[in-house]
Amino acid sequence: MSEPRNQSPGPTDLPGQADLRSRAGALDAEDPLAEKRKAFVLDDTVYLDGNSLGALPAHVPARVADVIERQWGELRIRSWDESGWWSAPERIGDRVAPLVGAAPGQIVVGDSTSVNVFKALVAAVRMARDTDGGAPDERRDEILVDATTFPTDGYIAQSAARLTGCRVIPLAPAEAPAALGPRTAAVLLNHADYRTGRLHDLPGLTAAAHAAGALAVWDLCHTAGALPVGLDEHGVDLAVGCTYKYLNGGPGSPAYLYVRRELQERFDSPLPGWNSHAEPFGMRPGFEAADGVTRGRVGTPDILSMLALDAALDVWDGVSVDAVRAKSLALTDFFLRCVEAYVPEGLVESLTPKAHAERGSQVALRCDGAGDVMKRLIEQGVVGDFRAPDVLRFGFTPLYVSFADAEQAARVLARTLGA
Amino acid sequence: MSEPRNQSPGPTDLPGQADLRSRAGALDAEDPLAEKRKAFVLDDTVYLDGNSLGALPAHVPARVADVIERQWGELRIRSWDESGWWSAPERIGDRVAPLVGAAPGQIVVGDSTSVNVFKALVAAVRMARDTDGGAPDERRDEILVDATTFPTDGYIAQSAARLTGCRVIPLAPAEAPAALGPRTAAVLLNHADYRTGRLHDLPGLTAAAHAAGALAVWDLCHTAGALPVGLDEHGVDLAVGCTYKYLNGGPGSPAYLYVRRELQERFDSPLPGWNSHAEPFGMRPGFEAADGVTRGRVGTPDILSMLALDAALDVWDGVSVDAVRAKSLALTDFFLRCVEAYVPEGLVESLTPKAHAERGSQVALRCDGAGDVMKRLIEQGVVGDFRAPDVLRFGFTPLYVSFADAEQAARVLARTLGA
Repeated sequence: MSEPRNQSPGPTDLPGQADLRSRAGALDAEDPLAEKRKAFVLDDTVYLDGNSLGALPAHVPARVADVIERQWGELRIRSWDESGWWSAPERIGDRVAPLVGAAPGQIVVGDSTSVNVFKALVAAVRMARDTDGGAPDERRDEILVDATTFPTDGYIAQSAARLTGCRVIPLAPAEAPAALGPRTAAVLLNHADYRTGRLHDLPGLTAAAHAAGALAVWDLCHTAGALPVGLDEHGVDLAVGCTYKYLNGGPGSPAYLYVRRELQERFDSPLPGWNSHAEPFGMRPGFEAADGVTRGRVGTPDILSMLALDAALDVWDGVSVDAVRAKSLALTDFFLRCVEAYVPEGLVESLTPKAHAERGSQVALRCDGAGDVMKRLIEQGVVGDFRAPDVLRFGFTPLYVSFADAEQAARVLARTLGA
Repeated sequence: MSEPRNQSPGPTDLPGQADLRSRAGALDAEDPLAEKRKAFVLDDTVYLDGNSLGALPAHVPARVADVIERQWGELRIRSWDESGWWSAPERIGDRVAPLVGAAPGQIVVGDSTSVNVFKALVAAVRMARDTDGGAPDERRDEILVDATTFPTDGYIAQSAARLTGCRVIPLAPAEAPAALGPRTAAVLLNHADYRTGRLHDLPGLTAAAHAAGALAVWDLCHTAGALPVGLDEHGVDLAVGCTYKYLNGGPGSPAYLYVRRELQERFDSPLPGWNSHAEPFGMRPGFEAADGVTRGRVGTPDILSMLALDAALDVWDGVSVDAVRAKSLALTDFFLRCVEAYVPEGLVESLTPKAHAERGSQVALRCDGAGDVMKRLIEQGVVGDFRAPDVLRFGFTPLYVSFADAEQAARVLARTLGA
């Protein structure tokens, strides 16, 4: 990135290299988000793995130090009230909300994505069977699950099905409309495929689920913070997501659960911990669920991880998700263009759809020996990741990835593949 | 604590005050754990709430800063391998193990206590019904639950029962032997009562559960780090506990799950996330549980909270749990002696058993207007907590509470109550 742009073409240049480097410079110069890069701790690495672990926002260490040294060390137990620890899950949920198109009061932060998938699916099955005072509709015994999804969702869905007397029907998201019927209780889909980067049709598939009387549960791990989700607008019932990818919350930062406001009164959690009780300090033997999305909480929140996330979310101040999406598409378009220009034909194949409407914020390239190729890329300072069996995965985080990064990554890839 | 000891009795002295202060000084002088206090960040406060949130070990901030700034900020995704993030749940579990009498390979750290109670209970019911290749013993449909326990355990037990076709039988722990029978699947008990501080008979009640063919699940939140637990020695099947009380892991630090080695192959988790898979990066559609206690993991571990705990556990280096127990009993004995001497008769009543074998590491005093009394104590720098409806709770953390603290707390309490 410190190399001069607009070099004259030399004997070792790749096809179109001078033009593409010049174009990268121009795109970076007109990028309205370019300044955001300074909010992160970055070095010369081309970091295209923010879809696995987001980079560190520069102000997070000082904020966490304050949480530990003053809030825990000095105030100790008083911080549950005085430092707002107790209400952090809802308060931080309300900060995630605008990033996924949700009004306040519908998101609670805590637990892992897997645990939230479990809460959402069991609760969805219960709601699908609950027929407004009539006999429970036990026929609803099928959970449709994206078979192409990140596998934890499928494992947890199997468990939720086993415990609620359902069976899982694995399918590709596009097959869901045909498979929906009077037996469908819930549909669990990933908004973007973790492997190929394909973006699924959240509005259309949600509407199809509703038309069949089923609930739509979406996993937003690979889209929240990368593109508009529109949970409220599209009537999504329940959603989960992690916060350590495009939201930069830190390694294993708490996940979140969205419960649409209209469903909250019927949300019947399989994990009713003391934090989801109407009166948590009443220490009553009988469970009575709290009002609102608070009933999606379980046990004591992990404050250090949660307040690191809280700090990390500051980088979104003044950022429009539409601007992020526009840059994301421009970045992935540009990267694909560079790959096409630089990499000799037949060595890689893009698994990521060309159509913008079907693309998340990553590019997945099928490549022989992908595991070894990714190792060599990383040695050369281009960090993506490898997904079995043969996928090179490059994540484009619009807040800190530049067009120069995209060009450099394609160039190093081409050289690594022998161009 | 900076006041001179051995004052001559003045007109405002409480009964026996000079003697008790002198005795406190002598006990502190001969305390083999006295030096450990320096490992913690403490001020003039008499902090008797370490059974709710342990004090900050002084070296934790620097360690967490390294995790954030170097491991996350510089190494980023590489830290999953290079900084040992991936294996942290088992590695830190092995550090908790000696504190609860467990050999390595049986404890995994992660999730909240409530979530771990859920895993343990559902898995216990499944194991109780699994009869070595014969027809499943569906008669085992009762879960005995300590009705005096911290309520989250009861709420989660109700959910586990509902999802496995069981019913919960609430009882006092001492009633468990009489209630056990051929229908009992599992018994969930708290090792020490969070309210009264009563210690229950873990060896005897575990043996009784086994004699009835049931599994014993223990919640160690109020004993781990305060007294010897002896999980292996007493044949406990499953156990859970938090790490933010006597283990000083920080607010909401991850909980842990113990699965006795002989049961691990049969441990069938209701939360089978990708972290509990035999090949987590194989991303296979079908679930295959990992060997060993790893199958107690679920999703991505919350690294910041987990590595703060890892650092906090350093204070246990060279500490014997027997020495901790000896000091704990001496502290609570001495505090009760001071309360008896200072507080006019009839104003408080100890709910904590006198017999050492029945006492945890806290003293609970019933007191009229306990909520208001605790507020006034806190204003005077004596921090315990209030538990509804009428309990003053004082936790004694042997690693950093002194006998002078105990005397001062009793003295301030007596003055507050009008002595």
